[in-house]
Amino acid sequence: MESAEAARDVAWMTEAMALAKAAAALGEVPVGAVAVRDGVVVGQAHNRRELDQDPFGHAELLALRAAAKTLGAWRLTGVTLYVTLEPCTMCAGALVQARIARLVFGAADPKAGAVGSLTDVLADPRHNHRVQVVRGVLEAESSAELKGFFQRLRASRG
Amino acid sequence: MESAEAARDVAWMTEAMALAKAAAALGEVPVGAVAVRDGVVVGQAHNRRELDQDPFGHAELLALRAAAKTLGAWRLTGVTLYVTLEPCTMCAGALVQARIARLVFGAADPKAGAVGSLTDVLADPRHNHRVQVVRGVLEAESSAELKGFFQRLRASRG
Repeated sequence: MESAEAARDVAWMTEAMALAKAAAALGEVPVGAVAVRDGVVVGQAHNRRELDQDPFGHAELLALRAAAKTLGAWRLTGVTLYVTLEPCTMCAGALVQARIARLVFGAADPKAGAVGSLTDVLADPRHNHRVQVVRGVLEAESSAELKGFFQRLRASRG
Repeated sequence: MESAEAARDVAWMTEAMALAKAAAALGEVPVGAVAVRDGVVVGQAHNRRELDQDPFGHAELLALRAAAKTLGAWRLTGVTLYVTLEPCTMCAGALVQARIARLVFGAADPKAGAVGSLTDVLADPRHNHRVQVVRGVLEAESSAELKGFFQRLRASRG
């Protein structure tokens, strides 16, 4: 059973990685997210901060807002969010607000990650909701995509 | 100078309180927020979580997203956000993401506040942006409005 779940996690994270690559092609930091319930995608997005000039245009928030529209409810009970990078403080808090069941992420973010790196928002027992966490799925692919993006950015800026 | 700033803070928080009261009249938890730059409102909102079935429909996020549209930029440099209740973890993280200059809030939130109550997201020196904080402006009014709202809610549920 555990290996079947692990295989599904890799499959959904592969979808999230495809969104991250689409973001990079548009000049956005490559982060992608897919929200899944009962084996069906209910929301998906990549980072769009520059495209939309939206300070909250992170993949996680956009995917979960899409999921709320799909489901017609702000409580996203039973939803798993797959995201290629460890969420920041805002996005980790957003997972609690949206009452999702499970977070699966790829690469850790030592500079801004709030699910184990800088802090661990989801481990705080005082929050009114708990989220199950799985780390490191397709971590190497996500890290390589981010590293390549920033290398190209620096090269283009001379 | 300090008293002139304090008087301005009370004046803007009075606007935010009016929005909180409008939220209560619509059956939403009464929280209001006003984003100001150079003495001009660039965004304002009240809590709309139930109305929009949006898990991220908090007054702070909505007011700052409106400000980003008004200013045409995701970096909300020089913006002060007035909000009647201490921000949650998501919203406190959002203030960092949006790079606002200053947060002025009313009542503390002992259950979910992340600017001094449960945690203090804005005091973490590892974040890549610092936000100045002023606490307790119109605190009694905000607390009374929230208390009345929840009392009426419990009464209506018998």
